[in-house]
Amino acid sequence: MSGDERSAGDLRNTGMALKHDREWDYELDRVVDAVADRDASTVGLQFPEGLKRRGPAVADDLRSILPDDVRVMISGQPCYGACDLDTFLLKRTDVFVHFGHSPMKESDKIIYVPLFSNVDVEPIITEALDELEAPTEATELGLVTTAQHMNRFDEMRSLLEAEGYEIQTRRGDERLTHEGQVLGCNYASAEVSAEQVLYVGGGKFHPLGLAMEHPEKRVVIADPVNNTVSVADTEKFMKQRYGAVHRAMDAETWGVIFCTKIGQGRWEIAQEIVEDNDNAYLITMDEVTPDRLLNFDLDAFVNTGCPRITTDDGPRFHKPMLTPGEYRIAIGEEPLEGLSFDTFHGTW
Amino acid sequence: MSGDERSAGDLRNTGMALKHDREWDYELDRVVDAVADRDASTVGLQFPEGLKRRGPAVADDLRSILPDDVRVMISGQPCYGACDLDTFLLKRTDVFVHFGHSPMKESDKIIYVPLFSNVDVEPIITEALDELEAPTEATELGLVTTAQHMNRFDEMRSLLEAEGYEIQTRRGDERLTHEGQVLGCNYASAEVSAEQVLYVGGGKFHPLGLAMEHPEKRVVIADPVNNTVSVADTEKFMKQRYGAVHRAMDAETWGVIFCTKIGQGRWEIAQEIVEDNDNAYLITMDEVTPDRLLNFDLDAFVNTGCPRITTDDGPRFHKPMLTPGEYRIAIGEEPLEGLSFDTFHGTW
Repeated sequence: MSGDERSAGDLRNTGMALKHDREWDYELDRVVDAVADRDASTVGLQFPEGLKRRGPAVADDLRSILPDDVRVMISGQPCYGACDLDTFLLKRTDVFVHFGHSPMKESDKIIYVPLFSNVDVEPIITEALDELEAPTEATELGLVTTAQHMNRFDEMRSLLEAEGYEIQTRRGDERLTHEGQVLGCNYASAEVSAEQVLYVGGGKFHPLGLAMEHPEKRVVIADPVNNTVSVADTEKFMKQRYGAVHRAMDAETWGVIFCTKIGQGRWEIAQEIVEDNDNAYLITMDEVTPDRLLNFDLDAFVNTGCPRITTDDGPRFHKPMLTPGEYRIAIGEEPLEGLSFDTFHGTW
Repeated sequence: MSGDERSAGDLRNTGMALKHDREWDYELDRVVDAVADRDASTVGLQFPEGLKRRGPAVADDLRSILPDDVRVMISGQPCYGACDLDTFLLKRTDVFVHFGHSPMKESDKIIYVPLFSNVDVEPIITEALDELEAPTEATELGLVTTAQHMNRFDEMRSLLEAEGYEIQTRRGDERLTHEGQVLGCNYASAEVSAEQVLYVGGGKFHPLGLAMEHPEKRVVIADPVNNTVSVADTEKFMKQRYGAVHRAMDAETWGVIFCTKIGQGRWEIAQEIVEDNDNAYLITMDEVTPDRLLNFDLDAFVNTGCPRITTDDGPRFHKPMLTPGEYRIAIGEEPLEGLSFDTFHGTW
């Protein structure tokens, strides 16, 4: 493979329009040490979707520093988060490296390499000051970020404290690894008294979920990668969700999805729905995709797995796809006003 | 669920254009017996894609005759063959029913329900006589079919023998359950001396594979479901394969897919390719789909798993997707004339 073509930090053609280049530290020394410690003959590597194209180059680097007889394998399973641990490859390799997410399942042979962003957060924090209420008006400020920016969390805090804010952070619950960290399915770290929260990170899903989960708070989004500051607006998102709930209100038959991935199996919730509804059928799967549900002739679906699939991919399914809470609204058990964001709490 | 909407044999909107209706016998009595024998509290059901829409109705029927406390779950994993056994649901249920395919993995708790077609084969056998060389010219005739028509195999044989043919059949190798049966990846049952072979069944894939594997034979296709008779024509298929091989000849980097499904793991073949080629990377996955390979920035792929994915879905991948044999042609190890159909032999 030519080094020119795929230099470090090159995310061209990844579908990610990044204003800043990012370089990642793959911490290959840790892998080499683990291979020696465990006398490993096989190493499995798993990358998030956005970094899969870097996989072969990382495998090359690793092969060049590992003993010749060690075999390196790359996971081809979809990977969007810590839940997407490739348990097949994990079982079949002596050392397994999961890049880019916080630890979920702990095991001696798993190495979690966090891939912290090296993007400077100071410019975007400065820009966010214009959007935040001034510290003289609202001294308290919640601060949250995602796994890849956790390495800059103390710096963010200091910058904001220097401006006069009293920063409120917490670790959230057991599902979260770090203080101030949010997941797409958990915003417990934002449960602070401050009425405004600054989210530092990419994407709209996390801050929207945060704003839905904490409707009384103003959520300011500082995206250090795309260099944009905005305020989370839940209206469009809510409209889409209300639309799905309304369309599902006429459903006679329901598919209740139980996701078999670690960290996504809400068994009791799925069982409860099926037991209370004779026209509900429990369907088990790992990847929940529109293709897989196409052949099921049911009127609507409830996804007890990742809420991100339900809400982000919802419009791509051929039938309405609801969260468990939305299902209860659609069947008339809860009022429409009760619509909220679906989150996972507690342990995995 | 309304019984009117989904009567037995109703395959409307399944994407399968069937000239004949089919009724299936789901053999639910066997499931009820197994639940009693095993004192089961959970039952898993797995249907092939074309029958997934019947799943909820079968679950209803089953729930009506099973004790109230037995929970019925349906697999949502893709299922196109016996390899696609849902091992997750298998592990999590006391009785597991796999519909529509021959047994692959044997286990006390798995019930294989074959779902034999009830379509009459006599009309299509009669029609096929016009396409076959007359028994006075070529007395020997090979006869093969797929799992769903195995129940009519003796009848097919008798009809043809009555016309004066000497029918040649064999069980093939360990991968095949029945005499005369072919799989999409195994045509050993057609290894007979006859120069013409009659294939009774739906679809083009099996007879094309058969014709590719046995290029010296004339393969007549009698499709009793769509009521058509034709002769297998490998030319178009070969052109598509030559096209893929040619496009892959410039490839510098290769993804070598190792499929983790039972029955599809050709580990030695995958290892051999990776060991001999520094620019080849082993990628493991269960479902091999175009989406999953999109994020890998490699020039071409070799699929050591199901040949049907490589050949049927080949054009849908963003880069050339080859069988192991085609790979050896593309890298110049074998001559272009060596192109053949990829099959799996021996045990699973």
